[in-house]
Amino acid sequence: MLHIPFQEVQAQLKALLMSRGCNEPHADLTAREIARNSLEGVYTHGINRFPRLMRNIDAGSVRLNREPEVVGGFGALVRMDGGMGLGVVNATRAMDKAIALAKVHGVGLVALRNTNHWMRAATYGYQACDAGMAAMLFTNTMPNMPAWGAVDARLGNNPLVLAIPHAGGHVVLDMAASQFSYGALELARLEGRKMPIDAGFDAQGALTRDPDAVIRSQRILPMGYWKGAGLSQLLDLLAGCLSLGNTTLGIGQLPGDEQGLSQVFIAIHYTALGGQAEIETLLQDTLDWVSASKPDGSGTPIRWPGSRVPEVRARNLAQGIPVDERVWQSILALQPGA
Amino acid sequence: MLHIPFQEVQAQLKALLMSRGCNEPHADLTAREIARNSLEGVYTHGINRFPRLMRNIDAGSVRLNREPEVVGGFGALVRMDGGMGLGVVNATRAMDKAIALAKVHGVGLVALRNTNHWMRAATYGYQACDAGMAAMLFTNTMPNMPAWGAVDARLGNNPLVLAIPHAGGHVVLDMAASQFSYGALELARLEGRKMPIDAGFDAQGALTRDPDAVIRSQRILPMGYWKGAGLSQLLDLLAGCLSLGNTTLGIGQLPGDEQGLSQVFIAIHYTALGGQAEIETLLQDTLDWVSASKPDGSGTPIRWPGSRVPEVRARNLAQGIPVDERVWQSILALQPGA
Repeated sequence: MLHIPFQEVQAQLKALLMSRGCNEPHADLTAREIARNSLEGVYTHGINRFPRLMRNIDAGSVRLNREPEVVGGFGALVRMDGGMGLGVVNATRAMDKAIALAKVHGVGLVALRNTNHWMRAATYGYQACDAGMAAMLFTNTMPNMPAWGAVDARLGNNPLVLAIPHAGGHVVLDMAASQFSYGALELARLEGRKMPIDAGFDAQGALTRDPDAVIRSQRILPMGYWKGAGLSQLLDLLAGCLSLGNTTLGIGQLPGDEQGLSQVFIAIHYTALGGQAEIETLLQDTLDWVSASKPDGSGTPIRWPGSRVPEVRARNLAQGIPVDERVWQSILALQPGA
Repeated sequence: MLHIPFQEVQAQLKALLMSRGCNEPHADLTAREIARNSLEGVYTHGINRFPRLMRNIDAGSVRLNREPEVVGGFGALVRMDGGMGLGVVNATRAMDKAIALAKVHGVGLVALRNTNHWMRAATYGYQACDAGMAAMLFTNTMPNMPAWGAVDARLGNNPLVLAIPHAGGHVVLDMAASQFSYGALELARLEGRKMPIDAGFDAQGALTRDPDAVIRSQRILPMGYWKGAGLSQLLDLLAGCLSLGNTTLGIGQLPGDEQGLSQVFIAIHYTALGGQAEIETLLQDTLDWVSASKPDGSGTPIRWPGSRVPEVRARNLAQGIPVDERVWQSILALQPGA
């Protein structure tokens, strides 16, 4: 395992994006967020996923130097078209717009269509929290999870983020509708690990913890069995209908890798209602109380969503980001002429 | 099993509420929605739960003849106080307000505090859909689910509803953060059934499908293991902080049965952006495609959330609502002088 400083990772990814003709602001933003994902321990949606983004740029399914355009609006509600551009740029702009709307209207909702993978969903929850807003956001994906009772994948795993600002580190839930993300399965396969609980069905229809078997069958288990399947279906319908973009059905009909996604960003300017000091006390007291639950004896630490981010970030800043050597070699090989 | 006409159920429940001094509009609304829950097959949150509501009215934890008051507002964002009144009335009024806000602002968000159990969460999703709005809404609850890795219940099961209008029957997901609701466990216990998958931990810390063991240990399994625990925690923090009301921590400190809940209602007037005909086509095509998935051979029907409601409603309207005879006797015994 290599340990590479954050700045070096960011500079390398930025240079690679610019080598394909990406403008500097977009390359800077995208490289920073992808490097930050690894910095904060979300390796599946950090450096490990960068070669796939570059393949999609080279294939033309991710188009460079696009800014999302407003195509409709009514008060606090705005519809944008991402022009099949860089997912990180489009999502950042959409959340910026939702935050701006919430400053005026108390709530802002942006529905974005024709965009691409936003990498780590939580990124845009942190963005809202840094602006003092609570947030709810979600995306659809390519078909990668079967409906409940089905064999073939016609649902996405459609991550959902719920986020609330907190002085001691924002509270951010980033949750796919499958029990595990494909990113997590891919990382486990890379490291030769089984999953700790059943992750899906194998080609014979049996439940399995083997990530490779699930990646091959494409039958990941919905989170909570039928519940995750229902959650996925509603998030997809909302994303598609609010943006008048693709649902998972349409994404699956596009050629090549996943593209043409629909996303929804809601920012909530709740501190405009006052009581900010009381809210922070309520939040801290509630987190403390839950964290002080009686442990079940299994050794599982009792944590809240996002609580580990500051410590992982600090460690990786100090020691460098741990990167699998083969992954880093594959990144270096993306240089023109390499 | 008795079969009782909807009108008779509604009239009986209404008369019982009025016998306690409830005003007629509140009694009418509450009785209609509770009867409708049983009519549409949600028996756990219909007639079966009515005796508990009456006990809470008699105990004073549910106060009659209260209307929720607006205590704060900023554009599309409104904070209301329910005055510990009837949960169905407060939630209906809050969603009415969110819909009215969305008509003006495109989106409306109402955060309601000091309310009581709203019975069936989906009710308010249907309310928004009937007004042509998509909706997201959630509530917190008393502590009834342990955090991940914990023994004692410091999270609620905090139902979440996502809803989108559909000409062929609204698509409405109503999902608690536990794998099963306590209502579902209570119904299974009443009928002497085990749950189809693990429902929680028994007193010895072992996973079990026995509803009685889980009701006694109060260790229900979060939906999707740690994921449902995280979802519950964020929904609780959002409900408490947006309303400046109780989180599950505060609810657990109140005496007697569950009371003093916090809820959030979001209405989305997405058809204001245009494209209504295209949206309905997209919705129908996507539902049809998922429903036509290849079955896994288990005999599990492939359905979308809410798809069964019209058929169950029609059957129970024609044949009467199936009611356990002991439950109905306990309802009749609530009459003054009975």
